Amino acid sequence: MSGVERYGHGGDRWTAGFLFHREASDFLDFSANINPLGPPPGVLEVLHRALTESGQPVLTQYPDPRSRSLKRALARKCDVPVDWVAVGNGGAELLDLVHDIIRPRRVGVTHPSFSEYEAAARKRGSEVVPLPLSEERDWLPGREELLRWVRQVDLAYLGHPNNPTGTLFPEESLIAAAEEAARHGSVLVVDEAFLDFVPGAFTLQRQLSDFPTTLLVRSMTKFYALPGLRLGYALASPSWVKKLEARQIPWSVNGLAQLAGEAALSDREYEERTADWLHRERLFLLEGLKRVAGVHVFPGSVNYLLLRLTGRRASGGYSSHQWQRALGERGILIRDASTYPGLDDTYIRVAVRSREENERLLSAFIEWETERKEESR
Amino acid sequence: MSGVERYGHGGDRWTAGFLFHREASDFLDFSANINPLGPPPGVLEVLHRALTESGQPVLTQYPDPRSRSLKRALARKCDVPVDWVAVGNGGAELLDLVHDIIRPRRVGVTHPSFSEYEAAARKRGSEVVPLPLSEERDWLPGREELLRWVRQVDLAYLGHPNNPTGTLFPEESLIAAAEEAARHGSVLVVDEAFLDFVPGAFTLQRQLSDFPTTLLVRSMTKFYALPGLRLGYALASPSWVKKLEARQIPWSVNGLAQLAGEAALSDREYEERTADWLHRERLFLLEGLKRVAGVHVFPGSVNYLLLRLTGRRASGGYSSHQWQRALGERGILIRDASTYPGLDDTYIRVAVRSREENERLLSAFIEWETERKEESR
Repeated sequence: MSGVERYGHGGDRWTAGFLFHREASDFLDFSANINPLGPPPGVLEVLHRALTESGQPVLTQYPDPRSRSLKRALARKCDVPVDWVAVGNGGAELLDLVHDIIRPRRVGVTHPSFSEYEAAARKRGSEVVPLPLSEERDWLPGREELLRWVRQVDLAYLGHPNNPTGTLFPEESLIAAAEEAARHGSVLVVDEAFLDFVPGAFTLQRQLSDFPTTLLVRSMTKFYALPGLRLGYALASPSWVKKLEARQIPWSVNGLAQLAGEAALSDREYEERTADWLHRERLFLLEGLKRVAGVHVFPGSVNYLLLRLTGRRASGGYSSHQWQRALGERGILIRDASTYPGLDDTYIRVAVRSREENERLLSAFIEWETERKEESR
Repeated sequence: MSGVERYGHGGDRWTAGFLFHREASDFLDFSANINPLGPPPGVLEVLHRALTESGQPVLTQYPDPRSRSLKRALARKCDVPVDWVAVGNGGAELLDLVHDIIRPRRVGVTHPSFSEYEAAARKRGSEVVPLPLSEERDWLPGREELLRWVRQVDLAYLGHPNNPTGTLFPEESLIAAAEEAARHGSVLVVDEAFLDFVPGAFTLQRQLSDFPTTLLVRSMTKFYALPGLRLGYALASPSWVKKLEARQIPWSVNGLAQLAGEAALSDREYEERTADWLHRERLFLLEGLKRVAGVHVFPGSVNYLLLRLTGRRASGGYSSHQWQRALGERGILIRDASTYPGLDDTYIRVAVRSREENERLLSAFIEWETERKEESR
């Protein structure tokens, strides 16, 4: 892979800087889906305090190997007993641990979905069994198709909401998949990395005790704008939590992340501000993008939008790589979604950001539209 | 395991707090071997700047997935090409990756040595092949014994200096082991987590290109007093570095650790201050401990000392657990070294710390000595 996503993901400003001859810090990043409100004020406060405190114990001492205080806070927040919670060095560590523990022969991933599921499978030689989702069917599988797929694999992934489509699975699909996984003895990982952005959305959280082979994996770095610190957690049966922790490397979750996570959870006002921002700006960006010639927008449900480039085949339109390059040269990073299996180079993904930033993205799209028109004359 | 080391390691103040009814922050910690000078001033400066910088990009953006800037700094420091360097979420991640990649059937560890080698082996079902080291032979193996052991395993660990004995392997042993590993096709990991504390000590660093199956793994968190942040690195052939990075989870090294690591490497004055402190305090503590009744001190070479409790069997002396409890109740954590395979409950380990702290440890030892005398009357 030669583009910005050569390491598999968005948000890589270092590679973008190299490709587009700019400083890494120079980009306006719509390729990673991070809350643009920045970290909750209480998080910055505890981090400052930790660094100014005499002796800086948060740096100079080993972190709690079991993240006990953060786990208690998560258990309270999610209203589950504390032994149903495991904390990880980002959600990515927890996904990887599941692979390392069950060594699945066959891994089920929807096409498209977050590329890390497939990467984790391939790096240990598992066979990937895709469940194709299509635009025509709103990126959702039929019930029988879903259950058949669950039965075919040892480990199945559902992104809820799914990345990059932004779609939520219906309640009945999630329950049916979790039941089928338990019956069949396969493991279902529901990746809820972005679920905090959809308050009120359905989750299996309250029914987890009915589904001993289902794990919910969540990120704390997208909603709380802390991807630099790395923090994720899983909700699962105590026996699964024990397995995850037994396989984890010692001190995998650094001390500042544990501290920040706990502070983040206590800020209810931040949650409300985020909900207000997202409600307003999602709509603003969605409506703005609908007016850009050559793109079709999928509304999704979350803080990013999948776009299909419509001009391409009919009239010598431009590919996702060309769009990414054109925007990159303007200092804006967008996600080339052709790297998602199941999508081709007519798809791109953009994050929802602040009003000012969304306006800059729309202007850049319109500028590039004008340029294309002139070139095609 | 029911003691302070129930999670396998020293420095766990949370468990100690629970056992000894104190706040975790209340302990003077001689159980973890961290530089008591605290982080280099330049590290605290860059961390402060990163947290006050507008928008806090180090928190709100993904870390460089390849730690490129830090790797360049490490390559300069170690005088190796940059593709010979891999960075990890603590040395622990790099050790674990080696297991995950080669899935060794048989893993060689010296008895005693850092318990994580054996833990990493057992959690994936590898058989452990011990190489017993004995006090009588200065904790060093004979040449033939060492080579036979290397031939018996798929992966062999040598701690240089070894933990908890503090001994360095002679140059000829390391070279012979690395040659034998290359010949036999086994992998040799030389754990140099504490090597920075022994400036001028021999390392295979300059000869690595002769030993394609040898990896040197180092920690940056002990010497630079940053265990809360998690940071380690490996020096190995480019093909090994590629394998490690391909198996690593995305963004395993957080952004603050990358930043801190780079700042730490540029502080030569801190290295000198550390060498001065250690030279002075190691001798002070060593001489002080020699005067404590009931302990024999092994001088080792580094920032911790292994002690054997001599009073035990002869005259109803106390075990390592009892010493740990007695000191714990005085607010001082020491390492019960009976958890190291190959040692029994007549061994404890203490870190070298500041003059004031070393004096407190010696006083506590003498207090407990007096108490024991009174009890035995």
